[in-house]
Amino acid sequence: MKLARCTDGGAPFWALVDTERDELRPIEGGVSDWGPAITRGEGEAALRFRGAVRALDSVRLLPPIEKTNRVVVAGANYAKHLAADFGIKSHSQPIAFLKAHGALIGANDALRYPPLTQELDHEVELVAVIGDTVNRDDPISSVLGYTVGNDVSSRDLQRSGPPGVGMDLFAAKSGDQTTGLGPWIVTRDEFAREGKLSLRLLLRVNGEIRQDGDTAEMTWDVAELVKFVDERSRFESGDVMFTGSPAGTGQGSGKFLKPGDVVEAEIPGIGLLRNIVTTAQ
Amino acid sequence: MKLARCTDGGAPFWALVDTERDELRPIEGGVSDWGPAITRGEGEAALRFRGAVRALDSVRLLPPIEKTNRVVVAGANYAKHLAADFGIKSHSQPIAFLKAHGALIGANDALRYPPLTQELDHEVELVAVIGDTVNRDDPISSVLGYTVGNDVSSRDLQRSGPPGVGMDLFAAKSGDQTTGLGPWIVTRDEFAREGKLSLRLLLRVNGEIRQDGDTAEMTWDVAELVKFVDERSRFESGDVMFTGSPAGTGQGSGKFLKPGDVVEAEIPGIGLLRNIVTTAQ
Repeated sequence: MKLARCTDGGAPFWALVDTERDELRPIEGGVSDWGPAITRGEGEAALRFRGAVRALDSVRLLPPIEKTNRVVVAGANYAKHLAADFGIKSHSQPIAFLKAHGALIGANDALRYPPLTQELDHEVELVAVIGDTVNRDDPISSVLGYTVGNDVSSRDLQRSGPPGVGMDLFAAKSGDQTTGLGPWIVTRDEFAREGKLSLRLLLRVNGEIRQDGDTAEMTWDVAELVKFVDERSRFESGDVMFTGSPAGTGQGSGKFLKPGDVVEAEIPGIGLLRNIVTTAQ
Repeated sequence: MKLARCTDGGAPFWALVDTERDELRPIEGGVSDWGPAITRGEGEAALRFRGAVRALDSVRLLPPIEKTNRVVVAGANYAKHLAADFGIKSHSQPIAFLKAHGALIGANDALRYPPLTQELDHEVELVAVIGDTVNRDDPISSVLGYTVGNDVSSRDLQRSGPPGVGMDLFAAKSGDQTTGLGPWIVTRDEFAREGKLSLRLLLRVNGEIRQDGDTAEMTWDVAELVKFVDERSRFESGDVMFTGSPAGTGQGSGKFLKPGDVVEAEIPGIGLLRNIVTTAQ
């Protein structure tokens, strides 16, 4: 099942998406209303539809999160990205931080080049959506589904934090309208229940592949990350969690994003974000 | 004017507080409705009252922020705290990060001892509330008012971040129900318009003064911090910004908080937070 948050110019609403027919069907309420039931596996029966089926291309896809929910990033989760791109060894535990809502853009929105940076970079990531109160003995049972994220980062701002405190992850990763999220949530029942998820992570700039990784390379799997974060600061239904990015970023290659670039972050089986970098304003 | 967010058991609402009469008068809408007008100086005329005047002690004071707004902490702002408590020199710029809503508690709520920490610490801070779109040429003109914060921090978790990345400020400062905020917003017209704010910052544990500083000791003043954050990630009406804590924390003295402690954070002229530490659960 694919669940999208969208707008046709008016108030945002959630909808069930049928990608074979290129259609969607609006649903009532928000994640806190139907998320727990869908997360428990109750399927379409847990949704109340409202209004007529409409064409997918009649709406704008928004980031699949409400403004009352948190955007958590659990990073430092791909050893090769850390070593090759930052020269940092993997640590005994991950690190989490919060991203501002104003940073988020939908699957086809413009990606705003932040005015203070000279080093704008991409990071394709698997994003888990929390659907229910976390059961720390079985964290995956609280995952509603997965979506695609592009944790676009201003590397020069990331380095500007005070020595002794560390990276300025707020300045680097909460720039207004920079982080792609979507195109929709694919519910957990469409993925293997046991073992590590193995999903390909692709990032292309103007058609050229820059990142090509697999979620199986994660140092800590989704269950471990959900538990790690929840033990420190509890998740609520509808919160999203970015899970780190594989090697191949501009931080390692020196190839940064520039205005006009077409940036595509894709996880086959989930979906594609296609965002064009716009001039700083 | 003092503006509080409160509940009498039902849905939260905002109210105008009269501390001389120990009364409050409920008002309609949220900060996005009346914040810009109050910030422009329109005073009580910008508020629409609803319902009867009631006793202040008939409600529970909530943190004066809505869940759609951000909690930004702009830290590393008191050189003596950095030097004495962390051994860190002041940097060429501050650092900002986001705090989870679930961390916030009201002026008289229980302060939950987070189960993972052995080193729970206090940080009294002046908190600026943003009331309108920021004018970066005159950032103070976008400030609705000020409130008191206690940015309670788990110091051992703060040190647990990956070397090369830095402090784990999320784990340290977004623990569930740890951060006092309130008791209300005192509007900006009650403070001096020109020059640095000079407000005393007091933190007592079981009646003993642990922090006794002054906002005049800030390395960067409120205007500079608002501009610094807004240039990186834009503020919206109703967002709050913590502005750093003066010396005297347990990080420097080794005196940490324990269950049963009565923690009082006070800024005379604004108000008092009185939170009792409860056993971890």
